[in-house]
Amino acid sequence: MAHIALPAGEPGILGLMTAYREAEKPLNELCNAIMCGPSSLTTAEREMIATFVSNGNECRFCTATHAAATRELMGANAPLVDRVLCDVETAGIDEKLQALLNIAGKVRRDGRLVSPDDVTRARAAGADDKAIHDTVLIAAMFCMFNRYVDGLGTSPATPEQYAAAGVRISTQGYGARFRTRS
Amino acid sequence: MAHIALPAGEPGILGLMTAYREAEKPLNELCNAIMCGPSSLTTAEREMIATFVSNGNECRFCTATHAAATRELMGANAPLVDRVLCDVETAGIDEKLQALLNIAGKVRRDGRLVSPDDVTRARAAGADDKAIHDTVLIAAMFCMFNRYVDGLGTSPATPEQYAAAGVRISTQGYGARFRTRS
Repeated sequence: MAHIALPAGEPGILGLMTAYREAEKPLNELCNAIMCGPSSLTTAEREMIATFVSNGNECRFCTATHAAATRELMGANAPLVDRVLCDVETAGIDEKLQALLNIAGKVRRDGRLVSPDDVTRARAAGADDKAIHDTVLIAAMFCMFNRYVDGLGTSPATPEQYAAAGVRISTQGYGARFRTRS
Repeated sequence: MAHIALPAGEPGILGLMTAYREAEKPLNELCNAIMCGPSSLTTAEREMIATFVSNGNECRFCTATHAAATRELMGANAPLVDRVLCDVETAGIDEKLQALLNIAGKVRRDGRLVSPDDVTRARAAGADDKAIHDTVLIAAMFCMFNRYVDGLGTSPATPEQYAAAGVRISTQGYGARFRTRS
């Protein structure tokens, strides 16, 4: 049971965003800007970073939601998501994404762990400033979202709800369900 | 030296916000909504939570900035800020803020650590749903900001810059310096 009163039938962050619209609006605008806006990273790469960080923080709601979005965006490569969550190094992803997930994993634990060598490795694999910026900010953002969802004891979703969220995020971006409400 | 190219003379998150306006806008809107908008918590209480979490994460830039803002908002009680960072229980703050800082400290480490007893304690001391929601979200937000600032290796500010930021935040809210630029 959640630590505060939330609308029934709205799992995870959806209940929070329904009840606290003052937070919903800037949080979804942040996601649309950083997860869906112009970047040298693909939306699939960005969703993979969000999934990887949420999995590291053991936030089941965010991991399942963003894994579903990543699968939608990866098409035939969808099985890579579960392989990355199992082991980044043997998953079969390219060196750039491996280097960025290494940075994201450090940011998740403590931003100060990111070393010049970590950044040099990512640059050597083709990451530019915007890719490094977005990787750090996405990792930081999901350290926020994971804590918001779990710190208020929100309820989990069903497999069907996670799959639907993956389709919604990958096709409409963030907060679309709130934009159409009065 | 920062891990990415940032404008000279803009310490901490200010350099990031100057260079990455797509992040600046929603991040400052989030702060204005949650740190300065309507709440059952005072702005001083909210800044104290931000300072306490940033100190726990050992983010020097955010700790010094929000300590300065909290001091501005507390007036004659400004010395309480340093006493809270030293020891919450003996600082001389009321039971409600102690209970909320206990929740914030748990969210900082892992949202799942917040227990029904922690929330019951806060409610008994007068915290309502909005106070508990805002405490968890502020703690989560500063887990993001601390990692954004430190994960990109930004430069620290001077004591004078921190003091000026405290005045700016406490009187104009967040992002005022960006609103007046072209």
